[in-house]
Amino acid sequence: MAELYLEDLAPGQTYGSAGRLKVSADEIRRFAAAFDPQPFHLDEAAACASLFGELIASGWHTAAMTMRLLVESEFGPAGGLIGAGVEELRWPKPVRPGDELRVESEILEVRASKSRPDRGMIKVKVTTIDQNGEAVQVFIGNLIVPRRPASRDIAPGA
Amino acid sequence: MAELYLEDLAPGQTYGSAGRLKVSADEIRRFAAAFDPQPFHLDEAAACASLFGELIASGWHTAAMTMRLLVESEFGPAGGLIGAGVEELRWPKPVRPGDELRVESEILEVRASKSRPDRGMIKVKVTTIDQNGEAVQVFIGNLIVPRRPASRDIAPGA
Repeated sequence: MAELYLEDLAPGQTYGSAGRLKVSADEIRRFAAAFDPQPFHLDEAAACASLFGELIASGWHTAAMTMRLLVESEFGPAGGLIGAGVEELRWPKPVRPGDELRVESEILEVRASKSRPDRGMIKVKVTTIDQNGEAVQVFIGNLIVPRRPASRDIAPGA
Repeated sequence: MAELYLEDLAPGQTYGSAGRLKVSADEIRRFAAAFDPQPFHLDEAAACASLFGELIASGWHTAAMTMRLLVESEFGPAGGLIGAGVEELRWPKPVRPGDELRVESEILEVRASKSRPDRGMIKVKVTTIDQNGEAVQVFIGNLIVPRRPASRDIAPGA
């Protein structure tokens, strides 16, 4: 994976998944038992009687799987994926057993820090997509990205 | 846990945790291995050399633990905690091994659906707080909440 610095990134750039992640009913139930023990994430019969009508993954499971795909994707900022916060997180469609997920990331904004010359912030939109090409999660987040060491001697704005 | 309907909820209401959740270094590493395999979540020595200087939990682990606390909290909408989306998610302080977390939820908005007379939407702010009383996560999300069955015959706005 490339080690990307702030100088390498520009709005409009897109990055894809290195792989795909297939989720099983067992994994959905196991995550739910640990973190989101609600009937529609734990039990097929109870899920049928719920708003959803079938077993679905916790949205936080979808978010966690997205992070896994992102860490293994072509998008590799130097120093790692360090989130400063999420501005938006939506689940347009629930994830079901057997779904196969990938991610697409798009850089929306790049800005150097005014107070910290060694780093900057980028805004990125990450869409998680199932095997039918439909979005199961959209998130817009801000990440901290280091500036390239050689360029740190140059005054900001130069 | 009370089964709360839309009619039971009003802006300004607050709900606390039923319990607390203590997180170990093992749990931090296990979540990271599955969903966020970055050095500062996996390994003490590598974490020391990172921006954080010590092993910290993935923000998505903090989010997942928050969901667990929320499901078990005093805040129990009828039909479950069904997220329509997150408007804001921040991690003001990383979670470290040994931290003991609880949640506080505050209702910000309550509105009936215009198109679906059986339900409405609430906006809620959920703060995850450590043993020192400091916020480790703040999230603002929208949840779908059913209206009380008896009240569904009454026209919206009546």
